[in-house]
Parts: sequence; C-alpha cells; structure tokens
Amino acid sequence: MILVTGAAGFIGSKVTKQFIAAGYKTITIDNLSTGLLENIPKDTIFIEGSCGNKSTIEKLNDYPIAGIIHIAGQSSGEVSFEDPQYDLESNTLSTLLLLDFAKKRNIKRFVFASTMSVYGDVSKLPVEESTIPEPKSFYACGKLASESYLRVYAGLGIETYSLRLFNVYGPGQNLENLKQGMLSIYLAQALHNDEIIVKGSGDRFRDFVYIDDVVEAFKIAYFNSYQGFDIFNVCNGYPITVDSMIAKIFKNLNYTKPVTFSNNTLGDQNGIYGSNEKIMTNLGWIPKVNFEDGLQSMIEWGLSK
Amino acid sequence: MILVTGAAGFIGSKVTKQFIAAGYKTITIDNLSTGLLENIPKDTIFIEGSCGNKSTIEKLNDYPIAGIIHIAGQSSGEVSFEDPQYDLESNTLSTLLLLDFAKKRNIKRFVFASTMSVYGDVSKLPVEESTIPEPKSFYACGKLASESYLRVYAGLGIETYSLRLFNVYGPGQNLENLKQGMLSIYLAQALHNDEIIVKGSGDRFRDFVYIDDVVEAFKIAYFNSYQGFDIFNVCNGYPITVDSMIAKIFKNLNYTKPVTFSNNTLGDQNGIYGSNEKIMTNLGWIPKVNFEDGLQSMIEWGLSK
Repeated sequence: MILVTGAAGFIGSKVTKQFIAAGYKTITIDNLSTGLLENIPKDTIFIEGSCGNKSTIEKLNDYPIAGIIHIAGQSSGEVSFEDPQYDLESNTLSTLLLLDFAKKRNIKRFVFASTMSVYGDVSKLPVEESTIPEPKSFYACGKLASESYLRVYAGLGIETYSLRLFNVYGPGQNLENLKQGMLSIYLAQALHNDEIIVKGSGDRFRDFVYIDDVVEAFKIAYFNSYQGFDIFNVCNGYPITVDSMIAKIFKNLNYTKPVTFSNNTLGDQNGIYGSNEKIMTNLGWIPKVNFEDGLQSMIEWGLSK
Repeated sequence: MILVTGAAGFIGSKVTKQFIAAGYKTITIDNLSTGLLENIPKDTIFIEGSCGNKSTIEKLNDYPIAGIIHIAGQSSGEVSFEDPQYDLESNTLSTLLLLDFAKKRNIKRFVFASTMSVYGDVSKLPVEESTIPEPKSFYACGKLASESYLRVYAGLGIETYSLRLFNVYGPGQNLENLKQGMLSIYLAQALHNDEIIVKGSGDRFRDFVYIDDVVEAFKIAYFNSYQGFDIFNVCNGYPITVDSMIAKIFKNLNYTKPVTFSNNTLGDQNGIYGSNEKIMTNLGWIPKVNFEDGLQSMIEWGLSK
C-alpha cells in the first residue's frame, strides 16, 4: 500500500489515480483546506486531517504502508505570508512527522513534492539542482527545510527523493483558487471575469510542466532503485513569459479581455526556468507535452466544465 | 533595550554582559532547559519560557526593544536526534516567532546564532559562506531553516545577520553537559573522570573559536550598518584534530588518562574548518585568541572551579 498525501489536490489526486491504475492499493491524508473531496479517487482509503498533526499520523499505524509520496501542503507562496507558522506546520513539520513515521515503520521509500520556489531569484539560468537555494517566501522556506530533513533521514536509512516541481498545469487544476497556480489564475479570469489582473510584470517568466509529465516523474522516482537522498528539477526546460502566456490563452479562446497589471505578490520570483538534464539523465524521465499542446488541452477542459 | 535570548547559556550570558558593560539595557528569554539561572547577568530582565512558544513572545510586548540577538536554542546535534520536533520548535519556530514580533514592532536589527553544522561534510576546505549547506543533524536543519526565514524577513525590511559559529569554547562553558561542546566534553572528562571517551575518530578536526572573540563578533554584527540579509562564518580559520586537542589538554594538565574511542554520534561531521575572510573583510572582525592561549585560559578556569 502506498501513502500519497494530498489526494484531494490537483497533483495528489492524479498521482494517486496512476498508482491505482498500476494495481496498487493507496491511502491518503488530506485536510481539505484547499483540496476537494471529489478529487480523491474511489478505492483510496481517506484519512481526513493534517499531516502536521501527530494524531493524524498515528492513524496510519493501522495500515501496511510500503512507501510514501508526500504531496500535501499549503501550496501558495502568496498565502504563506498570511500565516507563516501554519505554513511551517503544513510544509515542514508534516514532512518531519511522516519521515519519523517511516523510520519507525521501516518504510524505505519516500518521495517529496518540493518546488522551484526554493531557488528564489537566480542569476544563472537555466537553474540547476546544484544552485544554492535562496527562498523568498515562507512557502519556499518550508519546502527547503523539508529537503534538509529528507537528507538527514537518508542518513538513517530511508531512500528519499525531492522533486522540485516547476509550474505544474493542466486539466483538473483548481480554477476557483486565484492565489495558487499562475496559468490557472489567468485562465480562470479569462474564462469567468471581465478582465485579467496580473500581479506583477508581464516580463516575468516561468517553466511550465504538464500534469501528466509530473505524474510520470513521481512514478519513475518512486520505482527507481537508489540509495540516500537526491534532488531533481521537474520542468520542461524553457521559459514562457506572462505576456506570451496570456496571448496564447486569448489566441486559443479566440477572444481577448482587458489586462491590468498590479503590484507583485510578496515573495514572487522575477523569472525562472530550470535545467531538466539531471532527471532525464539519471531517471530517464522525458517531458512529453510541450506548452502549446498542454495549454490547448487545459483550455478545452476549462471550456467543457 | 536589546533582547538577547538564551542568557542562561554559555554564549548568551557573555553576549548579554558585554551589552550591559557598554551601557545598554537588556532583556532575555530562557527556558533553563540546559542553561543555568546563575549565568543570567544581574540587571537583565528575565522572562522564563521558550522562544518557540507564542505566549512567551507576547510577554515582550511590554518592553521597548530596539534590536534582537537570538542565541537561545537546543544546541546539541546529538540530542536533536532524540526529539526532532522539539528541535524544530526550539531552533526554527523560535526564530520565526521572534522575526514576526520584530516585524510587528518595527524592530530593524536581528542577529542570529547559526552554526557551522549547517555545512555538513564538505569536500572543499576551508569552507566558505557560498558553499551549499547539507546539514546532517536535526539541529543543523533547524538552524538552516532559520536562516531562510531571516532572508525572507530581510525582504520585509528587517536587517538580518546570521553568524555561523564554529566550535565555541572558553571559560564559562558547561562542564557538566557531556552532549554539547567538543572541547568542554573532553576537558570535563580529563578533569573529573577516570578516562576520556571519544565518540568518533581522533582524526576528526574542528575550527575552535574563543568565546571572547565570538562575543565581539555579535557586537560588531549588531552595530554594523547594513541592509538585507547576510551570513558570516565565525571561526579562527584553521583545523585542530581531536587527537591533538586531547594531547594539548594533557600537556596543560601535566597528566594523562586513558583514551577510549567509541562510535560516532549521529549526524557528526568528519572534519571541518572555515574561512573567516568574509567577516574580516566586511565587518573588520579579527580573532584575537589562538587555540593554545584559549585552551590554557579555559583549563585554568576549569581547575579553579
């Protein structure tokens, strides 16, 4: 049985489904703070609660868990400024408690959903895993601290991988939450609002990676044979600016709406894209969906809702 | 008024005394978990409690605090493996709550006691501040996470410095605690036990820095004019092996005792020494006490107790 935390969320839901499709039993923990009950796949055992809460983790003792994929967490850099302590519990203490559980139960495999946010603003692009992280948001601090714990527990005998996800997008992403997910925020506004409000400049750029490719990365990482701790960027390897993304959305929708620019959100990065050489070389992962195709799929899905 | 946390401890006590001597009013928070009440300087306002506890931090609201030096924390790498969650509260949540307090109160100056442990095992010596940290203990994880928070709060307008202390030693160090402080552990055994038990090999080496020099580093850092966030190694810049340290202790004491080697403690580093070029160049700090002189002072003090 595989524990996938956060199965009510966009990524956790899809990762869980894939393991079910591959014949595995799954269990999840989710506090439904931003995730949706309807996202949790049927046949998945569901424990409602926060992974940063010891009593929730103790409920896992009843199940024969063979490996852990930890995806749950407060996932908005912007929101992390509202309650840094909650973010620490959600994104760091949760990992610590789950690693502690894994050690006690002799669970040897642990894959963690980290983020490109840990890099902060970098001068040398594309950013490689060997770059010194300089997080700009509490969200990024919490994820980076979790990586430190993964490294320590690797020294205690657990095989731990951290996947630094870049901007994940695709069908199934929450179009109601306007504080999380760059592409989903603009698409939601393009579909439902009178205008698009961009918090920050249109010159900013990101590296978008399609949900199916991300799901595949978790699968490959989970089944790969390894020892110790390692970190991998999960990204397409090229930048898309905010301006061009919005232009592509309009082109796909065949209409335009006014675009207003306001101030950056706190802790926002200027521009970043990653090198995916390490994950391609070491794990054999290849991103299959380019931005144009992925965007089209997402928009078709958004229109059909 | 300056808040110096951890004034019941070895370093916090001496740092507080120096600010008092310079004419400043001081206040401290200490939970007396390893520190001693008798260490807290007279004239210092003392709040008993943990800095990782919100209700303790709220007690600070009654005082006109102009700057913060955060030294309190669980300070043993070895002990951090016994209760990682306590360590996270003690070494990370404490910093987050104090930074949050500083922001709310518009306190602009924050100096943090970090550690060379954040580096883990490094291949290139002497280690510079630009080296990627790879902590091996929960203690080091907690300190490194605190540094991330310092960086984020610097973005919110607080001037923050992190001093990465190497092996601090000198008169006043706790000779009863055999889980914290390398030199003090061996000296305590040499003075009071039938033998010296070394956990780990005699080839390991460390960079020892004398307490008075460390106190001076905090003073210089606190009064230096700067903006944003920065990190400085505080070290003498050369390695001393465990074997040579014990030999020097015996030479000073004019007797020897049997030395037994046992297994390393968890998360112990193999060998490390630092570059102090950055703090010397940027802050004008110079270590004044070499290891031989410092050791002699410490032994004289140990014998006089």
